[in-house]
Amino acid sequence: MTIDELRAGLDEQTVGEQLAAWIAELYPICRSITGDGVRETLRRLQRLAPMTLHEVPSGTDVFDWTVPREWNIRDAYIKNARGERVVDFQRSSLHVVSYSVPVRARMSLETLRPHLFTLPDQPDWIPYRTSYYAETWGFCLSQRQLEALEPGEYDVCIDSSLEPGSLTYGEVCLTGESTDEVLISSHVCHPSLANDNLSGVVIGAYLARYLERVSRRYSYRFLFVPGTIGAITWLARNEPVVGGIRHGLVLAGLGDAGRLTYKKSRRGDAAIDRVAAHVLRQLGDHEILEFSPFGYDERQFCSPGFNLPVGRLSRTPYDRYPEYHTSADNLQFVDPAQLAASLTACLGIVQVLEHDRSYINQNPKCEPQLGKRGLYHTVGGSAHSPESEMAVRWALNFSDGQHSALDIAERSGLSFEAIDRALRMLRDHGLLKELP
Amino acid sequence: MTIDELRAGLDEQTVGEQLAAWIAELYPICRSITGDGVRETLRRLQRLAPMTLHEVPSGTDVFDWTVPREWNIRDAYIKNARGERVVDFQRSSLHVVSYSVPVRARMSLETLRPHLFTLPDQPDWIPYRTSYYAETWGFCLSQRQLEALEPGEYDVCIDSSLEPGSLTYGEVCLTGESTDEVLISSHVCHPSLANDNLSGVVIGAYLARYLERVSRRYSYRFLFVPGTIGAITWLARNEPVVGGIRHGLVLAGLGDAGRLTYKKSRRGDAAIDRVAAHVLRQLGDHEILEFSPFGYDERQFCSPGFNLPVGRLSRTPYDRYPEYHTSADNLQFVDPAQLAASLTACLGIVQVLEHDRSYINQNPKCEPQLGKRGLYHTVGGSAHSPESEMAVRWALNFSDGQHSALDIAERSGLSFEAIDRALRMLRDHGLLKELP
Amino acid sequence: MTIDELRAGLDEQTVGEQLAAWIAELYPICRSITGDGVRETLRRLQRLAPMTLHEVPSGTDVFDWTVPREWNIRDAYIKNARGERVVDFQRSSLHVVSYSVPVRARMSLETLRPHLFTLPDQPDWIPYRTSYYAETWGFCLSQRQLEALEPGEYDVCIDSSLEPGSLTYGEVCLTGESTDEVLISSHVCHPSLANDNLSGVVIGAYLARYLERVSRRYSYRFLFVPGTIGAITWLARNEPVVGGIRHGLVLAGLGDAGRLTYKKSRRGDAAIDRVAAHVLRQLGDHEILEFSPFGYDERQFCSPGFNLPVGRLSRTPYDRYPEYHTSADNLQFVDPAQLAASLTACLGIVQVLEHDRSYINQNPKCEPQLGKRGLYHTVGGSAHSPESEMAVRWALNFSDGQHSALDIAERSGLSFEAIDRALRMLRDHGLLKELP
Repeated sequence: MTIDELRAGLDEQTVGEQLAAWIAELYPICRSITGDGVRETLRRLQRLAPMTLHEVPSGTDVFDWTVPREWNIRDAYIKNARGERVVDFQRSSLHVVSYSVPVRARMSLETLRPHLFTLPDQPDWIPYRTSYYAETWGFCLSQRQLEALEPGEYDVCIDSSLEPGSLTYGEVCLTGESTDEVLISSHVCHPSLANDNLSGVVIGAYLARYLERVSRRYSYRFLFVPGTIGAITWLARNEPVVGGIRHGLVLAGLGDAGRLTYKKSRRGDAAIDRVAAHVLRQLGDHEILEFSPFGYDERQFCSPGFNLPVGRLSRTPYDRYPEYHTSADNLQFVDPAQLAASLTACLGIVQVLEHDRSYINQNPKCEPQLGKRGLYHTVGGSAHSPESEMAVRWALNFSDGQHSALDIAERSGLSFEAIDRALRMLRDHGLLKELP
Repeated sequence: MTIDELRAGLDEQTVGEQLAAWIAELYPICRSITGDGVRETLRRLQRLAPMTLHEVPSGTDVFDWTVPREWNIRDAYIKNARGERVVDFQRSSLHVVSYSVPVRARMSLETLRPHLFTLPDQPDWIPYRTSYYAETWGFCLSQRQLEALEPGEYDVCIDSSLEPGSLTYGEVCLTGESTDEVLISSHVCHPSLANDNLSGVVIGAYLARYLERVSRRYSYRFLFVPGTIGAITWLARNEPVVGGIRHGLVLAGLGDAGRLTYKKSRRGDAAIDRVAAHVLRQLGDHEILEFSPFGYDERQFCSPGFNLPVGRLSRTPYDRYPEYHTSADNLQFVDPAQLAASLTACLGIVQVLEHDRSYINQNPKCEPQLGKRGLYHTVGGSAHSPESEMAVRWALNFSDGQHSALDIAERSGLSFEAIDRALRMLRDHGLLKELP
Repeated sequence: MTIDELRAGLDEQTVGEQLAAWIAELYPICRSITGDGVRETLRRLQRLAPMTLHEVPSGTDVFDWTVPREWNIRDAYIKNARGERVVDFQRSSLHVVSYSVPVRARMSLETLRPHLFTLPDQPDWIPYRTSYYAETWGFCLSQRQLEALEPGEYDVCIDSSLEPGSLTYGEVCLTGESTDEVLISSHVCHPSLANDNLSGVVIGAYLARYLERVSRRYSYRFLFVPGTIGAITWLARNEPVVGGIRHGLVLAGLGDAGRLTYKKSRRGDAAIDRVAAHVLRQLGDHEILEFSPFGYDERQFCSPGFNLPVGRLSRTPYDRYPEYHTSADNLQFVDPAQLAASLTACLGIVQVLEHDRSYINQNPKCEPQLGKRGLYHTVGGSAHSPESEMAVRWALNFSDGQHSALDIAERSGLSFEAIDRALRMLRDHGLLKELP
């Protein structure tokens, strides 16, 4: 099956529902940068794609960093004097600051207070907070919960462990005709947050599932890694592989109501940057952002020592929606139709990457006579040509070895699909020859 | 005589009337891509300029094409049962689909119907249709004529011939100081259509007539060729000449009420592109279009195997006026004043091409003292300089061997004329030296 | 002391008053391109900075020019029949056309009239006029004064001398770590005009005074030269020095109410052009002008044989305010606060020049772990980082040897100060290394 056939056969509504169902399944699991939450998430995703799980021991040096001890948590709560759980990890995995060290103590509200994090501006929402690299502990709760706490003594329990173990990440490798690779990465370390980044994770897994089925020009490598430390760990263990990466995408925040947003690679003029911009323009309302050293794992892929051609596909950028890193990024916050449209955009980008080639005109001096080949309407004279004939003219005129299909699409203002179709048709008629 | 003197001496009103008179004379002739209509048109134009007529036999291979058989037509009509000519070629050369094979038959309206072409949206206009490369026949008529046809039998006659003969084109070669050439081409194959392209044809012929009289730096070659096949034929027979073409213009559609429009060469940054943009900007309202592989013979000159620096000068682009390729493109549709202004623009472009040179400042370190040479006002202190002094300063500062007169005009925002005048004056004072 | 410390310690209000006081002191002196007025002005400025006065004899050839005879003037007037001074040089140095030859005669108003210059549109203002290179004489007066002159005989006296002498200019050289130079030039030849250019002169002198006190990476050369001929003379005598000039600024018209305006060097992309644009953008409302061969001594520094990276800092451009070169450019026309803000802009530009360096990331593969170095907040998860952390990320990601501090500031949209601070901090932590 070709990717064109696959894409043509997809039913967006069904796909959207499937993606949403997967997010719902994975949502309750408490993930962090290490531990059983990530492990369990990846094991379930193995049902979708041939994913290998890698375990990297705590203490392993990865560039300037060290793989941390493994964190696991079973339970956590704050009980009031009446023994009621006023903050309860069982109700939301966000209630505990990620990587909190174990604690079991009775203390006054005054002593407890510096360990409590809220969002005063959003009094019903629980924030998501982490403390990976400083040994401390804390609880996140809504402002209303905080205000309801009466002075007095509280039983505080975080039944966690922070011990030597390993960091877990998942990898799907699909070989293609070429060893040149396309890298698709998403961070898998966030607990019960739907858009950030179960949306990216399940879209990545579905993309792997689909691409496994089709003939591929490029090889594809999908990463499901804990944010920052996971990407760094993968890069540190795979430096020889990195040189083969020709294009890459970080997937994050793809289910909210906002328009598609592509953030350029650090290079700014990489092929992926032009391809993504073209595909998003064809799809409608969108935004293109310049690279900045903020955001997700594009920070590592685009660090100056690697400077990989890796961009990021999102919807609303993380710093522009208030639900970001709060309990409001929940199952209602992601929309099946938006998820499906994001996946379609990914497939569109892959489609262009797969088909973008250069051809050379075999009759470069003057136009070839299309009529005698049946490629031109019989009666001439009207002012407007159908799009397919316009595409043929553009394809012929600019197949000079300097312009790829995407170049011609951009210069003509026509879609990549229209130009690609014309190029292949002209090649089949012997008027163009594919460049290697 | 110099071109400056010639241009200064032109009276636009007189010229406009002459151009319109020529169009009126040529309008009734039924031209096509071959045949006596073109031949007769070119013979008449020989009164204006020293034009050579070339005849290329049918069957000659020209790149991917073959010169077609020669088409001639004497008469054509559709007669109704009462013997009345309800469609009559004698009333408009547009009534017959160009290159219609001979036909003489009686048939029902039903059988005739697929051979009839109309414009339902413009019920009073006759469309212009062609069928050069598929052997068929047809009539063009107004929608009202069609609707008036009663069911019944019709006598159909096209008294044409399609036989071995030749393709005719005209060429005017004016040698200049340099063998570098400027190519001016217009298509001469359209029947009774005034703007498209008798306007381009007569302006081209007048331009040749004028340039013959003046001293020339460049050599000029004017082509009057059938569209597409004529340009291809010329290119196939003149490949060695092509390398000498430094600048070129296709002239088409120059008499309508629209503003001047220049369509760039495929290169997009050729000298002619910058010159035409400068001249049109000086003349006022205008539009610059990017190259596209549609339109007139720029398609052949700018095919990738030639990629010549040839742009196109028009008024309203062909695909933006409804009269295009209809009987409404008639003598009323072209305006003498617009024709004359188009010719003036052509002369302006030639003027810049002729005079655009680079000079080198002989006193490059600091400004030279203009006052002692009488080139500067005596009493200083006011804020504003006259344009001539501004031009002198720009001319001196940017005559560094990197900037031509046009470069300086563009950078300064002053007119080419002002800069050119300053450069020549400074050269005459020994402050600048002309680069070869 | 560093320039940062110096700038931090400046009180703009005090500085503005000092600058205005200096302008008031120098205002009455009658300066011209040679003579005692300039000499006296420069001698007084020696109180501010270690200025050397150079005397270049009349008749010295300087490129295409010759140092003119020295002009001095003691008195000038027009007396009416009643012996009243109706025009009196003692009341304004503008009343005499600069470089007027001596005259002592009685003549009718009719004979006198061609020697009188007024501004009919500004009937109360006296224009400033010069006649350096044509031997003549004249008076400038207000239109009202002219209209009040009754027909009759007038005693005309210009007690001037035009004799072999010398042209005087001042130079302050401050050596720095590097022999690479920054050139700061202002014209000192105008008589009683405050904005043009006592503002530039005293700001230049104060800048020299300040930079003398601080440690300097670059060497600085300040010129106080008569316009045009002074700059040409300096360039002619200092050709070997010119090659060391890395950046330069002409200071002119810096005290009026308008916004800061930077006019680019002829190169258009010199470091000074980018630095000035960045600093002015940080300071608020401003304008950037392209280079043109008009204005002040940037015309000489940017003549094609030198093409130095010298821009111009002004407020309202000279050709946009009616007070230019009239008696309305007086002490009221310059504002202490504007003068001080102009000086601050100059210091800001120097600050960027001094600190703009490139660094190389010592951990280029992935981000370094900032947390373990105490460079990162402990609890993560919120969407927005403080500017200092944003600056750190930009500084790390773009310290690849290709981007200087200014490059990073421009790309990030952050201020040079923020980026520079981050770079130095990261260097101190061993994460970056300064490039030589």
